[in-house]
Amino acid sequence: MPVLDEVLSANAAYAESFGDKSELPLPPARGFAILTCMDARLDPAKYAGLSEGDAHVIRNAGGRASDDAIRSLVISYKLLGTKEWFVIHHTNCGMEFFTDGVMRGLLANSLETAALGEAGFEDFGTGPGSAEAKYIDWLTIADQAESVLEDVTRIKAHPLVPNEIPVYGYIYDVATGRLSEVPEATAAGASL
Amino acid sequence: MPVLDEVLSANAAYAESFGDKSELPLPPARGFAILTCMDARLDPAKYAGLSEGDAHVIRNAGGRASDDAIRSLVISYKLLGTKEWFVIHHTNCGMEFFTDGVMRGLLANSLETAALGEAGFEDFGTGPGSAEAKYIDWLTIADQAESVLEDVTRIKAHPLVPNEIPVYGYIYDVATGRLSEVPEATAAGASL
Repeated sequence: MPVLDEVLSANAAYAESFGDKSELPLPPARGFAILTCMDARLDPAKYAGLSEGDAHVIRNAGGRASDDAIRSLVISYKLLGTKEWFVIHHTNCGMEFFTDGVMRGLLANSLETAALGEAGFEDFGTGPGSAEAKYIDWLTIADQAESVLEDVTRIKAHPLVPNEIPVYGYIYDVATGRLSEVPEATAAGASL
Repeated sequence: MPVLDEVLSANAAYAESFGDKSELPLPPARGFAILTCMDARLDPAKYAGLSEGDAHVIRNAGGRASDDAIRSLVISYKLLGTKEWFVIHHTNCGMEFFTDGVMRGLLANSLETAALGEAGFEDFGTGPGSAEAKYIDWLTIADQAESVLEDVTRIKAHPLVPNEIPVYGYIYDVATGRLSEVPEATAAGASL
């Protein structure tokens, strides 16, 4: 079955048994937000125990504290009242396997999908590519604990983020499903 | 129980029954990505029928095609092979209830949480606020079908996005759990 039909068929089944979820209010019932990676293996609702209506979930490549993630977090507390945030990166993240230079080279070569080999991503595409990748910071990750610390620190230092919001830094292990604290990050994100 | 303890306790239970998910490969098994809103009521894994390992999920305030969402989508296909994308906004979105001007005024007044009244968001905070909100485009939404069309169009027109990736435009109804197509958006996002 094509992907679109699979999604619509799964959605019809979900809507069938939607029950009283139509009554859920807009603000998150449990008053917190999670910033995490788009990685397909991560299901934040499952790994953090969220039901519909509980918490905001913000996801991008790497779970990075990009300007857009900060836009979302500020809306999350200022308009919708969240009071605690999590930054959760994960082991075996795709963002560890390339650099800005590699990504720019791959996209300059072709827009087709590259393959991950032993030595990193290799591109067999036959073009055309684009130099536009030079204008994007890909927010790659060299070390997960460091990226969590960087992102918690960036969020806490943002002029639109109030001091009293604690920001917890964690790493999700894709081999076990378990969250481990990055203590320096959580300490940096502690409320004042 | 504090939120942090609740999350860690739910996570311990999830890890307990993690089973063979430790074997999941990095690239999404079903080869697609969903861009949707951070709204707490939305659970894309449930509404679209995703298991761990199936698909990338990108989420921000509104589910907007921000530069950061496009960064994530490009990584999704170029490095991890997704071939179809969904843009899914939703009814009763918080992004419909304010404008850039309102958000800037609220944050200039105080960094505390505002309250949603009959006439929109009202701020009873006692400051200090920040003028920094002027430098952020909050990507608010006036009309859901229009925002989906805008975002699909922006994604398709991006120089790093190959023509052959179809982008489907949908609205999720928070009262029913059901996805409805935005036909103009899906047509605009059709592969060539």
